[in-house]
Amino acid sequence: MTLTTCHMSVSLDGFVAGPHQTSDDPIGVGGMRLHEWHLGEPLHEADAAARDLLMRPKGAYVMGRNMFGPIRGDWDADWRGWWGDEPPYHAPVFVLTHHRREPIEMAGGTTFHFVTDGFEAAFAQATAAAGEDGVDIAGGASTVRQALAAAVIDELVLDVVPVLLGAGERLFDGLDDPGLEPVEVIHSPNATHIRYRVGAAGGR
Amino acid sequence: MTLTTCHMSVSLDGFVAGPHQTSDDPIGVGGMRLHEWHLGEPLHEADAAARDLLMRPKGAYVMGRNMFGPIRGDWDADWRGWWGDEPPYHAPVFVLTHHRREPIEMAGGTTFHFVTDGFEAAFAQATAAAGEDGVDIAGGASTVRQALAAAVIDELVLDVVPVLLGAGERLFDGLDDPGLEPVEVIHSPNATHIRYRVGAAGGR
Repeated sequence: MTLTTCHMSVSLDGFVAGPHQTSDDPIGVGGMRLHEWHLGEPLHEADAAARDLLMRPKGAYVMGRNMFGPIRGDWDADWRGWWGDEPPYHAPVFVLTHHRREPIEMAGGTTFHFVTDGFEAAFAQATAAAGEDGVDIAGGASTVRQALAAAVIDELVLDVVPVLLGAGERLFDGLDDPGLEPVEVIHSPNATHIRYRVGAAGGR
Repeated sequence: MTLTTCHMSVSLDGFVAGPHQTSDDPIGVGGMRLHEWHLGEPLHEADAAARDLLMRPKGAYVMGRNMFGPIRGDWDADWRGWWGDEPPYHAPVFVLTHHRREPIEMAGGTTFHFVTDGFEAAFAQATAAAGEDGVDIAGGASTVRQALAAAVIDELVLDVVPVLLGAGERLFDGLDDPGLEPVEVIHSPNATHIRYRVGAAGGR
């Protein structure tokens, strides 16, 4: 079975990014605190397992423009994402934007495609490209909300990080309940990693 | 060591109560969904363990007025809480209110005291009454926020329930990070129960 997945690190007060994203603060002010659980060495066993889940290869990705870069409005042709020459995706990445741009082929198999006709179109292109390896919804908050509203996500992993950001991008604002059932929980002092099946009875 | 505790059931989008509390909806519209994990029979083993944690006897409680009742403004002398003749507290309960009222002695050892001079005064009275059994901050959201801001909570248990309420009372709005460290996690399909030590390094 080909699953559409999504994996997000979220603060205890519900934010997946802090406020005021800039090139110096890719995830907004304080946002990097949400990712410390998988950036240290050595990792706690539970965090390593969650990181492996985060990094499992997928056939294609859908990503919001703000996750691709801090630029608003027209593209700066020099901007090729946050991740250097070899991004960690190794697959086609479909970036939602209102501004056309030619695809960018990166080292290691990642190609960024820019989709200007909305989430459903980007998801359809990603599905066609992904084949049996499935699509991952990479983020950020707005893109994940669109994917949950479109009921395309089968599995959502949340890393619940015990910090309060107080402001930023909330993951779940304005959504109907998608029907979430926790099926696996692992934890460390740094985060509680909960894997949810999406589309369970009880969503409303 | 005498711990001040707090135990709250919270939706995945951060609400501890739905909107529009009335006598028919004590926890607001949809709020009872947050408590189904401990109201069925038989309980899942993890939920039973979390319920035992929720029901462990304490020496005294601090409670917000909205948790005591749906009445706003002056008291209705007939209102004696949501819990019938024998509330589940079996200890003094200090209710925060702007409206004076004489104590109400209930069956089973619960006495409701009404405190009109703020959280710190209520907490001091509860501490004096509790002795070695410690104080529990019973809720709701506003009272818990005041307790976290006053840095009096040692242990916070959250039952993270996999539902979205979309509106209501948020637990964590407008708080500085109190420094939370998860020390125990148990889970069922109904909720993920996380016990946090409060006041860890890293709060800011």
